[in-house]
Amino acid sequence: MNQLRRDPITGIWTIMLQNGKEMVTFKPDGHRRLRRARPGETCEFCAGHEGETAPEVFAVRPNHSPRNEPGWNVRVVPERVPVLQIHGETNNRGLGIYDMLDGIGAHELVIETAAHGKILAELAENEIADVLTAYRERVLDLKRDARFRYILVYKNVGEGRRGPSLRHSLSHVIATPITPLRVREELTNAQQYFLLKERCIFCDMIRQELEATQRLVAENENFIALCPFASRAPFEIWLLPKRHETFYEWNNELPSLAKLLKLVLLKVRQALGDPNHLMIIHSGPNLLAGRQRGYWKTVERDFHWHLEITPRLRGMADFDIVAGFQVNWIPPERAAEILRQCTI
Amino acid sequence: MNQLRRDPITGIWTIMLQNGKEMVTFKPDGHRRLRRARPGETCEFCAGHEGETAPEVFAVRPNHSPRNEPGWNVRVVPERVPVLQIHGETNNRGLGIYDMLDGIGAHELVIETAAHGKILAELAENEIADVLTAYRERVLDLKRDARFRYILVYKNVGEGRRGPSLRHSLSHVIATPITPLRVREELTNAQQYFLLKERCIFCDMIRQELEATQRLVAENENFIALCPFASRAPFEIWLLPKRHETFYEWNNELPSLAKLLKLVLLKVRQALGDPNHLMIIHSGPNLLAGRQRGYWKTVERDFHWHLEITPRLRGMADFDIVAGFQVNWIPPERAAEILRQCTI
Repeated sequence: MNQLRRDPITGIWTIMLQNGKEMVTFKPDGHRRLRRARPGETCEFCAGHEGETAPEVFAVRPNHSPRNEPGWNVRVVPERVPVLQIHGETNNRGLGIYDMLDGIGAHELVIETAAHGKILAELAENEIADVLTAYRERVLDLKRDARFRYILVYKNVGEGRRGPSLRHSLSHVIATPITPLRVREELTNAQQYFLLKERCIFCDMIRQELEATQRLVAENENFIALCPFASRAPFEIWLLPKRHETFYEWNNELPSLAKLLKLVLLKVRQALGDPNHLMIIHSGPNLLAGRQRGYWKTVERDFHWHLEITPRLRGMADFDIVAGFQVNWIPPERAAEILRQCTI
Repeated sequence: MNQLRRDPITGIWTIMLQNGKEMVTFKPDGHRRLRRARPGETCEFCAGHEGETAPEVFAVRPNHSPRNEPGWNVRVVPERVPVLQIHGETNNRGLGIYDMLDGIGAHELVIETAAHGKILAELAENEIADVLTAYRERVLDLKRDARFRYILVYKNVGEGRRGPSLRHSLSHVIATPITPLRVREELTNAQQYFLLKERCIFCDMIRQELEATQRLVAENENFIALCPFASRAPFEIWLLPKRHETFYEWNNELPSLAKLLKLVLLKVRQALGDPNHLMIIHSGPNLLAGRQRGYWKTVERDFHWHLEITPRLRGMADFDIVAGFQVNWIPPERAAEILRQCTI
């Protein structure tokens, strides 16, 4: 008998197939694998091509090399064709029953390494920590702008771009003038839970998972990696700080996060062979924007930031598309077991 | 300047690109087109293959031919490998902070025609009306079961199945023991609007769109077809009854709906050349299930059923995936204009 499981944080129900077509994920054609770069391939994100991108807004340059020159580990540049523009006001307005505003925001690319074709899992722990630091610095900076209610940080491995630059490891930092629907749902559910229990729902989840153990993937002193009870997709993995913390950008244990993230990504590679995947940070919204509007007064009490990794395995998407719930053919208990057994 | 537009019914924000890459949709490779059947191709859903499916639960048989024999226009059979099972109880239960229940439900296939490879738009109006009638009959029957809170009716053209049966025109009828998240969002938003205005939000939208006209695609005496103000994808189209009506299955003007639906599908074909697309009916939930639990007391007042068509054009999905809002590179005003100009 298949199970329906509800994620208490997103409110999304997932149909968990008990004897699902597990092998799908292990057949070579079972999922879209990351295409590797051809030898000698370069793109506009490579060292020496700094002039082909917009001028950098942030970079990690160990030897203090000049801006927009080689010598960087991580480099952040504005997206050439942003969907949201940095200049202007949002002009929040109505049209009959409709609401609209101007597309104000920011869209930046985090170039995670100068080495074309190298993927995040292949970087050294300190290099991954540099990437996580770049995220933090950009979020802190963009949150100084009260027009931006939320800052999205994510990477969509193996999708989005075309051509060689698809194979240069990138992340996106996007500032939006509204709170994305799914984030708002998490904030609302976390708040309702606190009102009911006077506890953070994420802290309760971490405690329960540390006791149950069968959905644990890995942990270290500061962070935990688990397959959520109502995983929306096979091998969905969440990384959370063990201590209650609302904002990713306030974390000062990023080297420890880098260590666990690398381990988890290597386990995913070993189990699934570099599948296309999505990685996204769910952090608290922009308090500066919130305060001006009287929002999110209790968010620091309610919400607990986390990082979500979702491999893109071939599956049945229909149901998700039409109904807003998912079908997952590998229960998280089994996925976590497979990942635990991957020895790095 | 791009615009952000909010759909008042779903609550979803869409980024509307003003000078987007419109041509994408018209390049032959601009979107995934429906693959047509090869000559002589057959599948288990063809006339004469009735034995290869589960026994039918409903059929339109003009000449009263016997069940599970040829001679039908429309045939409804249970899905061979359903994700939800018809037998048993849901056993709604908790596990610490989590909620779960058994995968009780129903999953049926509506075989829209005996003619392999023929698509819905190619059927005669009365044949399309037979399909719409099959939807109604199955929904009415499944709603007699109080375990089912919602009945989903949709078709996912060009996706889902593999092999020849991919090219036999099918719809899905799925009964679920919980109300899908997105449906619940629509019900909630419609209710909140009524509480504020004491009017149905859909009725208000229809009135506003009939006045504005620039997002109108087509209309007849009973129904209207429009591109919604905050269209989540290019050429998204909604069909709605002009009169306030909560439940699709209570409609008795299905021949009139069939007429407009065929016209709209032919316009989509002319403008986009048989793109893969999703078609879904959003109807009211199962009152029988609701009454037992004290839900949806005001749904007949708040909600207005509608049929949504969403072509699958190549686009930027990232944003949607990560954030719960969409990027649309063709404003609905332009899409509606293109569709109006398609003369059938």
